[in-house]
Amino acid sequence: MPSVSHKGLSMPESPIRKLVPYAEEAKKKGAKVIHLNIGQPDIKTPQVALDAVKNNTLEVIAYSRTEGSEEYREKLAAYYAKNNIHVTAKDIIVTTGGSEALAFTMGSIADNDDEIIIPEPFYANYNGFATATGVKVVPVISHIDSNFALPAIEEFEKLITPKTKAILICNPGNPTGYLYTKEEIKKLAAIVKKHDLFLIADEVYREFTYDGKEHYSILQEEGLEENAIIVDSVSKRYSMCGARIGCLVTKNKDVIKTALKFAQARLSPPTYAQIASEAALETPQSYFDDVKEEYVGRRNVLIEELEKIEGIKVGKPQGAFYCIAELPITDADDFAQWLLEDFRLNNETVMVAPAAGFYASEGLGKNQIRIAYVLDKENLKRAVNILKEALKSYIA
Amino acid sequence: MPSVSHKGLSMPESPIRKLVPYAEEAKKKGAKVIHLNIGQPDIKTPQVALDAVKNNTLEVIAYSRTEGSEEYREKLAAYYAKNNIHVTAKDIIVTTGGSEALAFTMGSIADNDDEIIIPEPFYANYNGFATATGVKVVPVISHIDSNFALPAIEEFEKLITPKTKAILICNPGNPTGYLYTKEEIKKLAAIVKKHDLFLIADEVYREFTYDGKEHYSILQEEGLEENAIIVDSVSKRYSMCGARIGCLVTKNKDVIKTALKFAQARLSPPTYAQIASEAALETPQSYFDDVKEEYVGRRNVLIEELEKIEGIKVGKPQGAFYCIAELPITDADDFAQWLLEDFRLNNETVMVAPAAGFYASEGLGKNQIRIAYVLDKENLKRAVNILKEALKSYIA
Repeated sequence: MPSVSHKGLSMPESPIRKLVPYAEEAKKKGAKVIHLNIGQPDIKTPQVALDAVKNNTLEVIAYSRTEGSEEYREKLAAYYAKNNIHVTAKDIIVTTGGSEALAFTMGSIADNDDEIIIPEPFYANYNGFATATGVKVVPVISHIDSNFALPAIEEFEKLITPKTKAILICNPGNPTGYLYTKEEIKKLAAIVKKHDLFLIADEVYREFTYDGKEHYSILQEEGLEENAIIVDSVSKRYSMCGARIGCLVTKNKDVIKTALKFAQARLSPPTYAQIASEAALETPQSYFDDVKEEYVGRRNVLIEELEKIEGIKVGKPQGAFYCIAELPITDADDFAQWLLEDFRLNNETVMVAPAAGFYASEGLGKNQIRIAYVLDKENLKRAVNILKEALKSYIA
Repeated sequence: MPSVSHKGLSMPESPIRKLVPYAEEAKKKGAKVIHLNIGQPDIKTPQVALDAVKNNTLEVIAYSRTEGSEEYREKLAAYYAKNNIHVTAKDIIVTTGGSEALAFTMGSIADNDDEIIIPEPFYANYNGFATATGVKVVPVISHIDSNFALPAIEEFEKLITPKTKAILICNPGNPTGYLYTKEEIKKLAAIVKKHDLFLIADEVYREFTYDGKEHYSILQEEGLEENAIIVDSVSKRYSMCGARIGCLVTKNKDVIKTALKFAQARLSPPTYAQIASEAALETPQSYFDDVKEEYVGRRNVLIEELEKIEGIKVGKPQGAFYCIAELPITDADDFAQWLLEDFRLNNETVMVAPAAGFYASEGLGKNQIRIAYVLDKENLKRAVNILKEALKSYIA
């Protein structure tokens, strides 16, 4: 019998996936499971995007252009201009989700055994794409006590080797909710220029910034044109995770030329989803204002309620819709499984994402969980109360 | 300035892509270009698929299941059963096009520098996925004189090394139109079992078989359950190339488990396209009967007209909608470019795909072109006449 590849064996499993059977079992037994574990917003997709697909008149669902339609990329360039990011359609390749933009980026800039430095905790799927591409993730630790701010630049310096090809950040961050300041981006710009590295920024949560703070994109930083690569997506921006449209944005022509060859191999991004995504650019500002207000309210409730729990430490998110909480326990994997298997409050329990899966350093984050606040305030309140009662019972 | 990866530099460019600027220039100058170069059918997508998307009532375009919805995979299993391929929903992972099924397959079974044997000429994008995965394509030559039938099994034996992980076939073939016989599949089954290899079959043209010949799938072959991996797609079957839905089908549980980890990293296949693809399974048989009749008619016209050209040799396709023609010239790349730049008949010209891009062996196929018969008979006739007149003028 032929065997699978070593690479395949070392592909990481989603840190949440192994909990899924326990959640299904709990539901089968009649319990209600409140999901704090996934970043699937409950927010309605903008009507203009839904309508564009419903009203489409295509008779042949044909391949689109490999790099995405000219019209959509022109409109994307205008969207970026409104966000003070000055690019043209030629600087953009439309991809199948932000995921594919990341895969194309890694393939385009790194060979087998090359290294990419990433502040941890980080979005777990970065590990998957790194393994698939043969790239080594080199973590640099950020801390809950500073809300997961950028680690000291000397910590990056220590990790740079001849194999280092890039620094990758997520801004605002999943799973931390941290929003990098302009000064932090400038520090990163200086170090990547000094060492001739790429700076990759996953900016899919660009619009989700709170407390009057503004997002500062790596492509707003002058002089970083050859180094900066943005990974972007419509998934969270318009609550259309299932569309699977993202893009790669860079002024570096060699990167565009190279990424386009990876794109050609997979022919084109999905047609219907491009229709939805192009129309979504017409979403009125009021939609985003409402969404932001909703998320700020949720965050405030969540943090306020979490901080009532004894022995808990909570990161203060200024963006995205996640936060990391450190619990007075030693093994969040065990706790998360126990919540689903053994704990019920009025026949309800919660599903959380153990945070160890968001760290590359062995042993880190084992007492932390990631909470996605993509539920309404009432559900969030109830979920945190369940968490509070569960902790009492689990520790006792 | 940071530089792109060696892998990126060695990614092949689409063999057609470099001709695109010449085609655009020709059109700009007012000429009509008849496209014989792409496999984008002009056939209408089944109404039932178009309607399902237009009538969808989703309000949040959420992530679907990583492996595709349970319902769609159940229906797919029923589709395969009708084709004498007996699998369950658990043996299927829904992918973003056949392309992604191929990428997941390569990642799951081969490590860097491992080898996959492929009869050439083959679908050019296999090269792209191999390069992206770090896999070496080892070609085994098939010949136009035998209509590109399976090369002698001894030729495969000669190429097998400890690094060989799989044999990959496309059946019916792009770019050859060759349909492997049951006996040929049995020979392949024997050799992969003997050497503990995988047999990967790209069966996306399964329905497109002519002259009463029937497709024999690798998963119809008993005893091949652990070795066989099917790469499939809705693109050609339902003329919905832009949907970007395919699947990977195998009874090998280790492969499913491994491929699922690659799938998890990219979250889920596109939602709208899954709606269309699930509905497309309800397409009435009359649709396929009409389509097949149309393609047979086109093929007959194409071959008949091509054979009127002096010095031409034409493969006789029994499936798919491509054929390879060998021309009385030495450099089809130059000829294809010349057609677009310099030749006009009543202000029309044709765009063809030079076949060298479908061979991995340097120097092979340089006097061949691939023709896709995805145009109606009148256009095909006119296109071949242009080709005939052009050859006279080019050779003179």
